[in-house]
Amino acid sequence: MNETKLENGPAAASEGIDKTAGTSVFINSKKENIFKPIQAVSGVVQRKQPLPVLSNILFVQKGKQVTLVANDLDLQILTVAEIGEENSEMSTTISARKLTDILATLPDTNPLSFSKKGDHVVLSSGKSKFELQTISAEEFPVITEVDLEHAFTMSCLRFKYLLNMVSFACAVNNVRYFLNGVYICAENNKVRGVATDGHRLALCDVEAEKTADKKLDAILPRKTVKELVRLIPDSQDPIEVYISERQIKFKFVGIEILSKLVEGRYPDYQRVIPEHNEKEFRVGRQELLSSLQRVATLTADKLMGVRWNLTPGHLNVAANNADMEEAEDEISVEYSGSPIEIGFNVAYLIEVLNVLKNDSVRISLGEQKNPALIRMPDNDNFKFVVMPMKI
Amino acid sequence: MNETKLENGPAAASEGIDKTAGTSVFINSKKENIFKPIQAVSGVVQRKQPLPVLSNILFVQKGKQVTLVANDLDLQILTVAEIGEENSEMSTTISARKLTDILATLPDTNPLSFSKKGDHVVLSSGKSKFELQTISAEEFPVITEVDLEHAFTMSCLRFKYLLNMVSFACAVNNVRYFLNGVYICAENNKVRGVATDGHRLALCDVEAEKTADKKLDAILPRKTVKELVRLIPDSQDPIEVYISERQIKFKFVGIEILSKLVEGRYPDYQRVIPEHNEKEFRVGRQELLSSLQRVATLTADKLMGVRWNLTPGHLNVAANNADMEEAEDEISVEYSGSPIEIGFNVAYLIEVLNVLKNDSVRISLGEQKNPALIRMPDNDNFKFVVMPMKI
Repeated sequence: MNETKLENGPAAASEGIDKTAGTSVFINSKKENIFKPIQAVSGVVQRKQPLPVLSNILFVQKGKQVTLVANDLDLQILTVAEIGEENSEMSTTISARKLTDILATLPDTNPLSFSKKGDHVVLSSGKSKFELQTISAEEFPVITEVDLEHAFTMSCLRFKYLLNMVSFACAVNNVRYFLNGVYICAENNKVRGVATDGHRLALCDVEAEKTADKKLDAILPRKTVKELVRLIPDSQDPIEVYISERQIKFKFVGIEILSKLVEGRYPDYQRVIPEHNEKEFRVGRQELLSSLQRVATLTADKLMGVRWNLTPGHLNVAANNADMEEAEDEISVEYSGSPIEIGFNVAYLIEVLNVLKNDSVRISLGEQKNPALIRMPDNDNFKFVVMPMKI
Repeated sequence: MNETKLENGPAAASEGIDKTAGTSVFINSKKENIFKPIQAVSGVVQRKQPLPVLSNILFVQKGKQVTLVANDLDLQILTVAEIGEENSEMSTTISARKLTDILATLPDTNPLSFSKKGDHVVLSSGKSKFELQTISAEEFPVITEVDLEHAFTMSCLRFKYLLNMVSFACAVNNVRYFLNGVYICAENNKVRGVATDGHRLALCDVEAEKTADKKLDAILPRKTVKELVRLIPDSQDPIEVYISERQIKFKFVGIEILSKLVEGRYPDYQRVIPEHNEKEFRVGRQELLSSLQRVATLTADKLMGVRWNLTPGHLNVAANNADMEEAEDEISVEYSGSPIEIGFNVAYLIEVLNVLKNDSVRISLGEQKNPALIRMPDNDNFKFVVMPMKI
């Protein structure tokens, strides 16, 4: 189990340092085998760190097996690679940025070794040699996991899809801090993702292979979502997700991500999803998107309001700005209800139409002040709610 | 001749406005025919302008022929396109940014028209319509040309090559303002380009089809060089260059660029080019470049110094930083002279090795404090001089 490594890391480190003397190789492999795990964990390393050691990657080597860990105190990425030297143990921390810079310049196929030389580590590849300073592994604040319960398992591909379908609607730096995250909830072999900034909301349901017996939910910080999207492969490999009151853990293809949760209760999003919007129409997604992008060129810089004028068969889209300039466009829609005029922030519409991949979308409007609902043509697994604006 | 258009532009403008009344189409063509000349001239338009009208493009239409002009008071780009409506005359100015934004969203093949409507211009394409404000053509400060003499003609491809081979060595914001430009000099069917920032110098000679009877030279501002490199095609079409005491004009493929010159005398660059560097060696360009890039990862942040240790057959490259970290690399070179240790700013070396395309380069060193010379393997048309630094 990887958990034990996490907890024993720093202890193993001191052992390792005591045992090694002089210059001794502790990592030795093809460059690409070493670079891949370094790139995987270093995404979490920030340029400005409260502690110098957080600029570094922790290496815990026991024979062939090397565990790499990086964290920013909130989010930790761990991976294990078979790149170590047999019959040796060693732990240390090395600058993530310098390792990345150096490895990027080395030829892909040459063997690369890391060896200890006093307080320094020496990287050698062909005739290239780099002596880097280190910080002792004991100083590295490994985050330990507490009381995690298995919440669900599904394919990497599907979980990444879920995150991509909702995360764009997250708030950024909102004082209602729980909006700055993605809400996920697992129950009855179904996992739901929700994100909202108070003006628009995205919800997506997907099937899970397995969920816990009881409902488990969590609010993921934006940075955690970003790292997940970067690291989760587009493959059928399983991702296992564990949740506790304050933490969430993801295990997939040899990577473990352990993250703090956003604290607080997620708002009751159900009540903002309109149930009885009667003015429903279908429209080509790309056609509507292009039309909105054209009209957006002449919206007021900050508000970005566009007027929709929906009549049977036609949607007229218009905007104007403070310079009294006007843009207007018209597209065909499948609609036979009563006419309505309504305004929206065009940025919200463009964003959701870029996230959807369907040929057409289903849009339903209520009254002028009521939220609109955008769905895929054939199912209700994805819902996007957007508040109208006065124009 | 295009010159007459330039000078008559604003006059024609007022005529045009008097003659047109109500909504009348003055430009009408496929979108791509209109977008291409707009993109050509709008590169010169800055976001922040001293005069609002300089955010706009001047359109002077006389029948089919439409002249587009943009300038920033120092640099002017003019082009002529056959996109006008016959039997009509019109002049106006329209925001370069808004035109670019709008045209980027329109489908490529649809016909697009510009028509006048009061103070506004209406762009129409299919069911899209954009009403834009204008500023009167009379307010547009067209730059007129004075006393230009033909300096040289050569192929576009060759002149662009000349600019690319030297412009990277220009100074940026140097108080010796004449270093912030590229010096060109035409004489005896040869055109020379020179750029230097005081620490390194690049010189390139190319053949011209034709040069003036006397020597003509000029210092081109960086922005002018940048626009030339953006607009000159990689083709055998001719570029004609005209020079006066304060201006330079370039004519190529329907585009005219008129630029102020950097005033002042260009320094005597000849005396810094070493003539008797005895320690000469050949080295694979890519091999040396990769080696320098590897070692550059551990140079001090600002100085970027690398040490070269040249011995028969070998070049050892090394660097260290303030954290007492060290990088070292060694490559094979064709050299049989006496050993030398010398230091350089690695950024200068990397830049010139990226600009050169040859498989190998010829490098000659003098004494430790003397400039080094980098050339192509087989000729002296290109010379790069770099001052050593103390390490």
